[in-house]
Amino acid sequence: MSTIQHEKIALARRVLAELDLDCWLIFVRETGDGGDPVLPLIFGHDLTWQSALIIPREGSRLAGPVAIVGSHDGPLARSTGLFAETVGYVEGIRAPLRETLARFDPRSIAVNWSTDDVKADGLSHGMYLLLRDHLADTPYQARLTSAADLVRLVRGRKSPAEVAAIERSIAITHEMFAELEAWARPGRSERSVWEFMQESMRRRLVVPAWSSAGCPIVTTSPRSMGGHGVPSADLAIEPGCIFHIDVGVRNDGYCSDLQRSWYVPRAGEHRVPDDVAAAFTAVRASVDAAFAALRVGVEGWRVDEAARTTLVRHGWPEYDHAAGHEVGRAAHDGGIVLGPRWERYGRTPYRLVEPGHVVTLELGVDVPGRGYLGLEEMALVEPSGPRWLSRQQTSIGLLPTA
Amino acid sequence: MSTIQHEKIALARRVLAELDLDCWLIFVRETGDGGDPVLPLIFGHDLTWQSALIIPREGSRLAGPVAIVGSHDGPLARSTGLFAETVGYVEGIRAPLRETLARFDPRSIAVNWSTDDVKADGLSHGMYLLLRDHLADTPYQARLTSAADLVRLVRGRKSPAEVAAIERSIAITHEMFAELEAWARPGRSERSVWEFMQESMRRRLVVPAWSSAGCPIVTTSPRSMGGHGVPSADLAIEPGCIFHIDVGVRNDGYCSDLQRSWYVPRAGEHRVPDDVAAAFTAVRASVDAAFAALRVGVEGWRVDEAARTTLVRHGWPEYDHAAGHEVGRAAHDGGIVLGPRWERYGRTPYRLVEPGHVVTLELGVDVPGRGYLGLEEMALVEPSGPRWLSRQQTSIGLLPTA
Repeated sequence: MSTIQHEKIALARRVLAELDLDCWLIFVRETGDGGDPVLPLIFGHDLTWQSALIIPREGSRLAGPVAIVGSHDGPLARSTGLFAETVGYVEGIRAPLRETLARFDPRSIAVNWSTDDVKADGLSHGMYLLLRDHLADTPYQARLTSAADLVRLVRGRKSPAEVAAIERSIAITHEMFAELEAWARPGRSERSVWEFMQESMRRRLVVPAWSSAGCPIVTTSPRSMGGHGVPSADLAIEPGCIFHIDVGVRNDGYCSDLQRSWYVPRAGEHRVPDDVAAAFTAVRASVDAAFAALRVGVEGWRVDEAARTTLVRHGWPEYDHAAGHEVGRAAHDGGIVLGPRWERYGRTPYRLVEPGHVVTLELGVDVPGRGYLGLEEMALVEPSGPRWLSRQQTSIGLLPTA
Repeated sequence: MSTIQHEKIALARRVLAELDLDCWLIFVRETGDGGDPVLPLIFGHDLTWQSALIIPREGSRLAGPVAIVGSHDGPLARSTGLFAETVGYVEGIRAPLRETLARFDPRSIAVNWSTDDVKADGLSHGMYLLLRDHLADTPYQARLTSAADLVRLVRGRKSPAEVAAIERSIAITHEMFAELEAWARPGRSERSVWEFMQESMRRRLVVPAWSSAGCPIVTTSPRSMGGHGVPSADLAIEPGCIFHIDVGVRNDGYCSDLQRSWYVPRAGEHRVPDDVAAAFTAVRASVDAAFAALRVGVEGWRVDEAARTTLVRHGWPEYDHAAGHEVGRAAHDGGIVLGPRWERYGRTPYRLVEPGHVVTLELGVDVPGRGYLGLEEMALVEPSGPRWLSRQQTSIGLLPTA
């Protein structure tokens, strides 16, 4: 049996060696209600009691990955075939954890914390304190170190199987856009659009790529709730305005994240008005500028800068977010941010674009009197340059009105 | 507009005063993919950028709760009506966070970490470090303290509206059990039972109370994967064995968590064999003993002990888990654990049973040659004593075979 989790554990063992780290320790509990975002990547199931997944570097004295889990989680851990050894405990993890570490005496133990990469920050503060306590009076307490670089590389280097899974989610999203376009009409409320898309996902056996309440985000006029708002039952698709949707689906564990905009014509209006067409041209050109800048070895903020300066050159104000983020098991997959060097992004805009990165390129403008015009596409970074994964929206269309 | 979140924030303000804490600071980011488990309780939406929700004690100099959020999350935060003030930032949260704290100068700032209560441990270690960094060179860095007692009391004291929501989820689960009983037959695989229950949830517009892969847990014979296993495509409901299911649903944000068992008769068998009936009697008596011990002011481990000693007295081995846990927004809702004083439960079995606690009472036995017989019921702690919320399984029935 070979799964993406097998691939990712093998990759982690190589990256540990690259980074000269001795092992990776994933320390979790009760993951059914959240939990460490690396767990789906390297395990694919939930763990209930305190659990330690220990992944040694390539060439370690420890023959292979070890799972130390509660006895009720043992059969499941064994069934994955991911571990050379599974230890099931009843009363507490402390003794088997200490024994396992002592067996190969790692000089460094990478654990999941990061101040700026949310997907490398799966260890809670309480679990950090507990882990330190479990390792009291051993040399290992002082050998805990951040796994942020490791997690970034293991998540970010998408394998062909991961890219294929993302492409399936993108294809499903395109189907959903086509179906939406055929159904959406002036007068249909934002809330009914949200319901239509939720039902569209259920029928396709996919789930929203982020919390369902805001997936999709739907805006229909300048009066819509901006940003990460919730679709309104009182506002509806409105002639003379822009109808915009931001949606992602998760299929087989991998996400899409795309935005589309339509112009809703007034009675007798048969083409997109100049102000809206010009806004689309500016947005499209900015996304294309980001794409052109998306080269291996470039720092993330430069990709954002390419988009940002293009938009400003077209006479629009800067957007107040990042031009892109990685996509994978999560819609916001951590790692590099293609964003400005603002405090809130920490060091993430300084990370380098790498082969295997799957990212969004996204931005928009508020068109006076018309509403929000947003565009979000997805691309894969290949050694030779970027490749679009989504089918590009190259012009803003008229939403059918009858 | 009054919602459960309004109720819970008001309760938090009173409990802060009870505990002599000046404020509660919920510090989160990117909660769409996990995040702090208190967020649904006191906010009900996701937050994407670094966000600080500050809830002052009753009688604080700060007039009311303040939300400091990214500009894109601002409209949503304002729309909830939960905050006296919403501050939206663009580049970083550091300055508005420091300014807000300086305005009322709290002597203590409770933040969400706990070594043993997973639902009070929503602050990641990276976010803890970041928060300390944001507060560098202020007196507030040294005033951070654990919110574990606060969270436990705010989560655990279920309001009438919360209990009503839980009761609706329990009623739905009972409907699903009845439907399952009418459909389940020897030969149907564990996997098909899982699919039936998943479809049953979809039709009722509820979601699994924990990760769908293991919700329900299904066992059909001694060969089934024990504990938190995944239903098998190769094992099926089997005459002469016990058919057992552990399932919970989340409806309107509140969960159920129940187990039921049936005996699957062989051809010509018209009553439950004595060994199975005796096992059920022992399990039922143990659950009832836990119920009888579930009194206000009792430590959690005593409730477990009542069940555990009853089971052993009936000649069965001890179960290797806790006899119960709180239920609420999560199936495992943190707070008190009705479990043995084992290392892995930390201090949670020493917490006191309080009015408003909603808990499971659950345990089971492996019947030789028959499989796992488990029972899980739910109860509410009232000042005068416990009250069952679920309809009790008082005997083990025969699964219809035709």
